[in-house]
Amino acid sequence: MDYETPQFFTVMQYAARADRDVVDMVSGNPDWEPPTALRDGLREYADGDVSDFQYPPSVGLTPLRDEVAERRGVDRSRVLVTNGAGEANHLATTGALDRGAGSEVVMTDPVYPYYAGRATLLDAESTYVSADETGQLDPADVREAASDGTAAIVVNSPNNPTGAVYPPETTEALVAVAEEYDAVLVSDEVYDHFDYTGTFESPLSAESDHVVATNSFSKSMAVTGFRVGYAVFPPEDGPMGDLVERARTRHMIQNVTGSRPAQYAVLRALRETPPEYYERNRERLRERIDRFTDALDRAGAAYTTPAGSFYVIARFDGFPGTMENVERLVDEAGVAGMPGEAFGESRADWLRFALVTPRVDEAAERLADYLG
Amino acid sequence: MDYETPQFFTVMQYAARADRDVVDMVSGNPDWEPPTALRDGLREYADGDVSDFQYPPSVGLTPLRDEVAERRGVDRSRVLVTNGAGEANHLATTGALDRGAGSEVVMTDPVYPYYAGRATLLDAESTYVSADETGQLDPADVREAASDGTAAIVVNSPNNPTGAVYPPETTEALVAVAEEYDAVLVSDEVYDHFDYTGTFESPLSAESDHVVATNSFSKSMAVTGFRVGYAVFPPEDGPMGDLVERARTRHMIQNVTGSRPAQYAVLRALRETPPEYYERNRERLRERIDRFTDALDRAGAAYTTPAGSFYVIARFDGFPGTMENVERLVDEAGVAGMPGEAFGESRADWLRFALVTPRVDEAAERLADYLG
Repeated sequence: MDYETPQFFTVMQYAARADRDVVDMVSGNPDWEPPTALRDGLREYADGDVSDFQYPPSVGLTPLRDEVAERRGVDRSRVLVTNGAGEANHLATTGALDRGAGSEVVMTDPVYPYYAGRATLLDAESTYVSADETGQLDPADVREAASDGTAAIVVNSPNNPTGAVYPPETTEALVAVAEEYDAVLVSDEVYDHFDYTGTFESPLSAESDHVVATNSFSKSMAVTGFRVGYAVFPPEDGPMGDLVERARTRHMIQNVTGSRPAQYAVLRALRETPPEYYERNRERLRERIDRFTDALDRAGAAYTTPAGSFYVIARFDGFPGTMENVERLVDEAGVAGMPGEAFGESRADWLRFALVTPRVDEAAERLADYLG
Repeated sequence: MDYETPQFFTVMQYAARADRDVVDMVSGNPDWEPPTALRDGLREYADGDVSDFQYPPSVGLTPLRDEVAERRGVDRSRVLVTNGAGEANHLATTGALDRGAGSEVVMTDPVYPYYAGRATLLDAESTYVSADETGQLDPADVREAASDGTAAIVVNSPNNPTGAVYPPETTEALVAVAEEYDAVLVSDEVYDHFDYTGTFESPLSAESDHVVATNSFSKSMAVTGFRVGYAVFPPEDGPMGDLVERARTRHMIQNVTGSRPAQYAVLRALRETPPEYYERNRERLRERIDRFTDALDRAGAAYTTPAGSFYVIARFDGFPGTMENVERLVDEAGVAGMPGEAFGESRADWLRFALVTPRVDEAAERLADYLG
């Protein structure tokens, strides 16, 4: 599989061009409403002074960094606002490689394709550690795969595509591996508001100098197109203090700064959105998971029930998760998913379906009719 | 001078913290109104469907690329929408270096510090060609500086900080040098709407496979904080067709995509804003240039009268353009500019003033009182 160019946009475009009704379960684009305060924030911004339309600080609007710092229990100096979690992951990984303490990036299989494409783009050595059938990671496997040449270990929990939520023991053990090999544990936490187990814990809580936590408001506020994310780096005055400094410089050279209307709207939403908003979205997804997996049961498909995030990966006998089969499903069944092979060899027989449509039963029934 | 971290944000923050009234002439942040249609576009977007809040295509909103392609007279496939001209320049320069056809970046002195910082970050060899006193560039000097090891020649006309507008002969000769050495001419044209001579011509019109034109709406629409820019690459089916492909991949890995509310608002403004809007802004700046340079005359300062962009660089006897002197001017004269040394050795005796305030006479008089 060519990881270099992640295939999400390709499949979305294919589905959009189809000559029939298609239930779109390709992307991680939420179909539910953003917070009311987010729309209000944009309206307010549109009427603002022209000075509000100019460069925000390169590291992000100060009150937005303050809100993030408070929620994450860290000093503001550790927070860099980025162009979504994508840029946060890019800065964290590039920074880990730039230290000169290794040229290898350890990832999981299945993997979120952007991590793999990034490692390739950056000429890093890519090592994959297999997750088990349920998506869980054995830290002993990660320890075995890692070495003194490891620059970064990139993980994602709650996980896309498996839906796994790593237990605190896994997270703690991963931090220990990163410390042991003087590597950076890059913890991508964009689905932290979609943990149905209530057990998710960020490795940030280990207070290790070897952790960079990345996140965005794309999923939690249903605004993947806004591009507001952040990274929390190790303390500036600690042994890994150069990571945040390098990231600030690269961010400035690469992007100058992030988009201010989006930051402004997210800031207002962050301040004013009650916990019920997030709980309502989780509840909606719990229901969709139930309905989709019930229909998959009726279709005789194998699948994993997500403990977090909002994807279900499913396997239909004799119908491997290739791009070709994904296109057939679009054209012949009217359901668009992502090919499992896009996430790694271990899921080559699988398809990933994003539960970002109210038509999950209909989709599962179409799949059953076509593949059952 | 440390180019690695451009100093704009540092000086802006210093000026903002000052314990007195300061006329801010540091940044290129316009103080005039954005197009009415831009504010309307944001308001309209705020009320849009949730699907409009999700990922735009990685290469940018299709109608926005169409509008750009039409204005630039190129095929849409050549247009990549970026996070401001900053990202466009980053992708163009990185792409030129990634070709393996050279590791040197040729720039001008004085230079826009981001170009220099980028070359350093990318481990490129940096070569500077001196502009003359008025900011004009002799293509023969560029030809002499260039070699088979040259990957990119990065120019900016209308120029920041000199205000020079290169005549078409210069532009054509620069294209020829890029072709001769199999290099990429990166033409940063963010001030194209601020050409007071009417003579500016983009090297794109040469229809060479060795030109990448970069631009943004930051200055022309007075929205530096929106981060909407673009690059026009050589045709995909030409000898340099891999440039656009590489840029798309890097853009996707680095940023996933740009911020959609900003793209949406810019699109509407691009469609609906009459030429008078841009002419009015030029007229305002022409007046400010006159008033500021008149006051500089009275103060006995040397300066260049800009033919384009909106900066005046000035020299006061015995007061070189160091960061220390800039801080003294903030604290003791109440005027904030940029140190000339930030733009290169050749302007180390100079200070750069951005005409982004109606208080230009007042600023010049303060300078005269303090330094005269």
